[in-house]
Amino acid sequence: MTTRRTGYVWHEQYAWHDTGTHAGIVPSGPTVQPFQTFESPESKSRLAGLVEVSGLLDHLTRIRATRATDEQVLRVHTPDHVERLKAGSAGAGGDAGDGFTPYGPGSWEIALLAAGGTIAATAAVLRGEVDNAYALVRPPGHHARREMGMGYCLLSNVGIAIEEARAAFGVERVMIVDYDVHHGNGAQQIFWDDPDVLALSIHQQQLFPTVGGELDETGGPGAEGTTLNIPLPAGSGNGAYLAAIERVAGPAARAFRPDLILVSSGFDPGALDPLGGMSVTSGGFRAVAAALVALAEDVCGGRIVFSHEGGYSPVHVPYCGLAVLEAMSGFSTGVEDPFGPSFDDSPVHPLKPWQDDVIRAAEELADRLSGRWQ
Amino acid sequence: MTTRRTGYVWHEQYAWHDTGTHAGIVPSGPTVQPFQTFESPESKSRLAGLVEVSGLLDHLTRIRATRATDEQVLRVHTPDHVERLKAGSAGAGGDAGDGFTPYGPGSWEIALLAAGGTIAATAAVLRGEVDNAYALVRPPGHHARREMGMGYCLLSNVGIAIEEARAAFGVERVMIVDYDVHHGNGAQQIFWDDPDVLALSIHQQQLFPTVGGELDETGGPGAEGTTLNIPLPAGSGNGAYLAAIERVAGPAARAFRPDLILVSSGFDPGALDPLGGMSVTSGGFRAVAAALVALAEDVCGGRIVFSHEGGYSPVHVPYCGLAVLEAMSGFSTGVEDPFGPSFDDSPVHPLKPWQDDVIRAAEELADRLSGRWQ
Amino acid sequence: MTTRRTGYVWHEQYAWHDTGTHAGIVPSGPTVQPFQTFESPESKSRLAGLVEVSGLLDHLTRIRATRATDEQVLRVHTPDHVERLKAGSAGAGGDAGDGFTPYGPGSWEIALLAAGGTIAATAAVLRGEVDNAYALVRPPGHHARREMGMGYCLLSNVGIAIEEARAAFGVERVMIVDYDVHHGNGAQQIFWDDPDVLALSIHQQQLFPTVGGELDETGGPGAEGTTLNIPLPAGSGNGAYLAAIERVAGPAARAFRPDLILVSSGFDPGALDPLGGMSVTSGGFRAVAAALVALAEDVCGGRIVFSHEGGYSPVHVPYCGLAVLEAMSGFSTGVEDPFGPSFDDSPVHPLKPWQDDVIRAAEELADRLSGRWQ
Amino acid sequence: MTTRRTGYVWHEQYAWHDTGTHAGIVPSGPTVQPFQTFESPESKSRLAGLVEVSGLLDHLTRIRATRATDEQVLRVHTPDHVERLKAGSAGAGGDAGDGFTPYGPGSWEIALLAAGGTIAATAAVLRGEVDNAYALVRPPGHHARREMGMGYCLLSNVGIAIEEARAAFGVERVMIVDYDVHHGNGAQQIFWDDPDVLALSIHQQQLFPTVGGELDETGGPGAEGTTLNIPLPAGSGNGAYLAAIERVAGPAARAFRPDLILVSSGFDPGALDPLGGMSVTSGGFRAVAAALVALAEDVCGGRIVFSHEGGYSPVHVPYCGLAVLEAMSGFSTGVEDPFGPSFDDSPVHPLKPWQDDVIRAAEELADRLSGRWQ
Ligand SMILES: [Zn+2]
Ligand SMILES: [Zn+2]
Ligand SMILES: [Zn+2]
Ligand SMILES: [Zn+2]
Repeated sequence: MTTRRTGYVWHEQYAWHDTGTHAGIVPSGPTVQPFQTFESPESKSRLAGLVEVSGLLDHLTRIRATRATDEQVLRVHTPDHVERLKAGSAGAGGDAGDGFTPYGPGSWEIALLAAGGTIAATAAVLRGEVDNAYALVRPPGHHARREMGMGYCLLSNVGIAIEEARAAFGVERVMIVDYDVHHGNGAQQIFWDDPDVLALSIHQQQLFPTVGGELDETGGPGAEGTTLNIPLPAGSGNGAYLAAIERVAGPAARAFRPDLILVSSGFDPGALDPLGGMSVTSGGFRAVAAALVALAEDVCGGRIVFSHEGGYSPVHVPYCGLAVLEAMSGFSTGVEDPFGPSFDDSPVHPLKPWQDDVIRAAEELADRLSGRWQ
Repeated sequence: MTTRRTGYVWHEQYAWHDTGTHAGIVPSGPTVQPFQTFESPESKSRLAGLVEVSGLLDHLTRIRATRATDEQVLRVHTPDHVERLKAGSAGAGGDAGDGFTPYGPGSWEIALLAAGGTIAATAAVLRGEVDNAYALVRPPGHHARREMGMGYCLLSNVGIAIEEARAAFGVERVMIVDYDVHHGNGAQQIFWDDPDVLALSIHQQQLFPTVGGELDETGGPGAEGTTLNIPLPAGSGNGAYLAAIERVAGPAARAFRPDLILVSSGFDPGALDPLGGMSVTSGGFRAVAAALVALAEDVCGGRIVFSHEGGYSPVHVPYCGLAVLEAMSGFSTGVEDPFGPSFDDSPVHPLKPWQDDVIRAAEELADRLSGRWQ
Repeated sequence: MTTRRTGYVWHEQYAWHDTGTHAGIVPSGPTVQPFQTFESPESKSRLAGLVEVSGLLDHLTRIRATRATDEQVLRVHTPDHVERLKAGSAGAGGDAGDGFTPYGPGSWEIALLAAGGTIAATAAVLRGEVDNAYALVRPPGHHARREMGMGYCLLSNVGIAIEEARAAFGVERVMIVDYDVHHGNGAQQIFWDDPDVLALSIHQQQLFPTVGGELDETGGPGAEGTTLNIPLPAGSGNGAYLAAIERVAGPAARAFRPDLILVSSGFDPGALDPLGGMSVTSGGFRAVAAALVALAEDVCGGRIVFSHEGGYSPVHVPYCGLAVLEAMSGFSTGVEDPFGPSFDDSPVHPLKPWQDDVIRAAEELADRLSGRWQ
Repeated sequence: MTTRRTGYVWHEQYAWHDTGTHAGIVPSGPTVQPFQTFESPESKSRLAGLVEVSGLLDHLTRIRATRATDEQVLRVHTPDHVERLKAGSAGAGGDAGDGFTPYGPGSWEIALLAAGGTIAATAAVLRGEVDNAYALVRPPGHHARREMGMGYCLLSNVGIAIEEARAAFGVERVMIVDYDVHHGNGAQQIFWDDPDVLALSIHQQQLFPTVGGELDETGGPGAEGTTLNIPLPAGSGNGAYLAAIERVAGPAARAFRPDLILVSSGFDPGALDPLGGMSVTSGGFRAVAAALVALAEDVCGGRIVFSHEGGYSPVHVPYCGLAVLEAMSGFSTGVEDPFGPSFDDSPVHPLKPWQDDVIRAAEELADRLSGRWQ
């Protein structure tokens, strides 16, 4: 297998973002016993741990995250949103917008470090210091809207990195591929009218947010076709995800010819995820990542940056993430996914007709709309 | 709504069964960071807590669990299995059979208390002390085979209670309805050749065990049709579960005319379960339970006993369990499921054609085989 | 051993009081990684669990807690404090006063239930329904001042129960014995000028609050001698605690002749407590409780009520609490404290000269001041 | 302040050593609810996290741990002990000797990595690559005896590093200073008859092991005076620890003239430790470390290596460890210990007469015996 120089971002402080004692999603209260927010550090810090223990870290290029600047953030988010977060973070914390986005004292600085981590990974790729890069950041970003946080996301890490790529590196066109199990509604909003950013989201239909993410949302006037949604039915497995990448993301990328691909890398389509209803295995994520890396090599000189989003299984995410990093770098650690053997043989994986229907519709839509791209 | 006298078993010691530090399913090891076994006390003890905090406990009849006797256990399990568990439990613990069933010092006594809890609930119903009963027991039982533990299960709580019902209460025919997301392989094995126990399992196809649980497994010679499997595809929601109950379990019960119904009540078809790939909500479980209670009233004087099985979401199971208990007792606490509003409107719930196909096949099979029941 | 009817209060909702993600004491922040507040449910709920699993619960009289009324609370606390807590509890929670007293949504109602639990235990004793009683309540109360919460305490459970005892049961004189490792500053403030409440606190000198709790604090004008502090040096063991009870609390009680004794029962003098620097064992707590029960039988017809305060070892508190309950009820469960054998033989236990100095000073002070009591 | 090149060892796999579900110290069982072993990863991994988040890591020299070889281990431990651990680690884990030393699958390799980490730190100092070094390793080592594990310790990390220093680097004399709150019984046993290793242990009298660690244990025939114990009474604070270093360790070091000092660095004398009964603060540990570094500069060219031992407060250890590393390196991060302000002013800190008695006795003993050292 070809090996590549793969950049890697992780910062211990990502594990310090305090999401409190919610019962998974909802705040504790008179009839809700406190527990732990699903978006807790474990799945991320245990992935970072496995990257080290597996020995893969020795084959990656460590990229240092620094905080995004206010200027970088304000290219994407409103001053009001920024001020609210700053104030809350300087105090006792709070919620970033929708009631499902708790944060604690100091979370503003950590959110800047997350956005900065995705920027750093992107910059390293654009400078040619590495071939591709994975930014294992926290908090995640793909639900964050311009004017508010949402769904555990404070800032749009990917959106901010894209604007920096355009402002500082002369990048013109960017494609986003979002395989988090939830709709990438934040990027869709942020780039809705932007003909130079193609935002493609593969997700479970109406999981979260419960409205939107449908096929007929294709971008604003002048940007038709630069939003693409593939709302898969619950129960999809490796086959459906790989088909979505190969049959929709692939042709779209070849038609759109981006200079750079940003991946919203969520592991909540994983088979053990408590929030998602899909059944993707580490083998599935490995194949998806390999297909995306090959696609980037095909269309944009291999320039692809993965930015970590959701994924709430402390035990499964590490193996899924390791598989993606192995696929990116071309280096195999030999570490076996202990969940692999039985999971990979599940009857959920072969593409089902009802999944194929959605993918075919997205395929036709993308094909039709891509004519509008210059 | 009619209210009923509903018996309820819970014992603090159920929360003390020690399942160790597995990474969810697999033991820790050189490339597996320790964590917590999915089958941990939280989902059960938090359900017991909500039953109390919601006030429902005041409307239930508390039934005291005592340990099953060796004689009761040995009606179902082999002496070898019993001896191995006793020895391990008197020492440092171990694994009860398949490598996925860790237990600790003293777990044997807790397993006896779980089986004894299901016996006590069954006895209370058969004596007419209560109308129906819920045994919130741990460890679970439906994977346990005669000769070994399996899938977090040490002893067949339901199997042992059925044999006691027949030995001590003159019960002749029993129907098992198992809505745990995993195949009820233990009951299937135990009663495979028994024409007087109809074991019906609704589950995700080939989730666990990965072999078996298919439509064509229908019981041994002389007991044809007394095993019924409904292997639903991943992604099923409330509609599929309710259809399976109404279209398969209902007619089968009316044809089989059991004296008693035992329910293997697993909440791992729940939308937030990390192991299951289904999307059932508390509203779905409520409807399923209501249908089963009505069915019992229709065919066996209302004699129905629920025995708790899987369900691995510490935050969701409490509301699902409360819904079942409310449906059983006819008493509404007014406590809202905080996950309810958005979950219930998901597009996963209406019955899909590909789910209907499985249910229809089971329906036809049950209809055809029920002719053999006298 | 004589057995007694011992009342027992515990409510599941006590375990739901949400104290958040502090690093033990201090809020998380830029240089403070989130963790868990020391005052978490575990030590209490695990004690409640052991009371049940040990079988002792069957020999206790369960007393039901109901919420204290506003009227009951306002006898002790200021309207401002009450309004702030109500408002915070109806919202996202907050801090009850000193920055070390986090609470969550719904904590106000739980605080009422804690005060109400101590009231219920007291009422049961005063009505003669039980001989004595233990209120295992949470949040604790002994640091709460009239106008603010403090040190994990929202409301003065003991203070509120005392005022109810006087208002509703004609009790005239009450003695408080506080063996929590921290100074009982709340009761000291609340009853500073009250000649009818003798507040005696045995604690580690200047542990928390870091100011106060000294020997020379003896009560306000007209109430001289009704505050008594025994500020023991760090490192004290069973001997010092028992000596303090026998040599100071005993004579004081016999001189003061209370109608009722309230005990602020904190297990943070325990040998495994993370906050306290003392080394008391379950055997020590057992002896202290036996001495207090005997004292109550001597001076006030056995009317003694223990209200749970601190104690932050999830593994040690259960055995210490069980020992107290066994001493109170005269019933032995036979459950061995697994920490007992080596802990009890530690050289820390025999009374040391430097501990004796403090006790002697308190002894002399109490003797001198008791002359003022009528 | 002078800055020094300080080496630093930490390996993610140290956090993977699986110590199971003990109730702190004792295995779970019929009357012992499972919990978490005190010796869990948190206190160590959170210290490693703070070293990174504080920025100190950028000023340290990262030293890579590799596994100790069998040859290195067998210089200290018996083949039987090694074989038992290897076998257990290749299986389901077990206990390393005394019933208080649980380990899991793969723990053997982690124990080798811990010993190897202390070796690597020592080697870097002896090669002059760094001025001094801190090995943040796990599992700890100072209780491990030649023939068995004990008290959470599998292998004698310090003992193995000393033998390597002698075998590979020509070091002749080594002094051990052990400020863990428990007696350094392992080193005492291993080097009892060795006149070239001076093992000095400052600890809480008879805490653990409950026998031994007394003043009159001074070494075997021909090695008199090379074992020195300072069994402080419970309740000791910064003053007693600093006095023990300055008045006993200092003169002993100047008399013994070691080529190297190894420090068994346990943070369980800390004020928030659940196992220790002392009250040392981060300021106290900082002063102790500064004194030891100065002592090493005085007697052995600054060659001093700290090897991490106990310390069971996940919230306090990080700040104590950071203080030690700041003192070693001479670099101040400016991070404030959030527990500092009130803790440092506690009346426990000034040296007490009863503590002075013990230190004086040790002082006189060391002075008398040091005459025997050549
Ligand atoms: Zn997601
Ligand atoms: Zn299941
Ligand atoms: Zn306290
Ligand atoms: Zn120690």
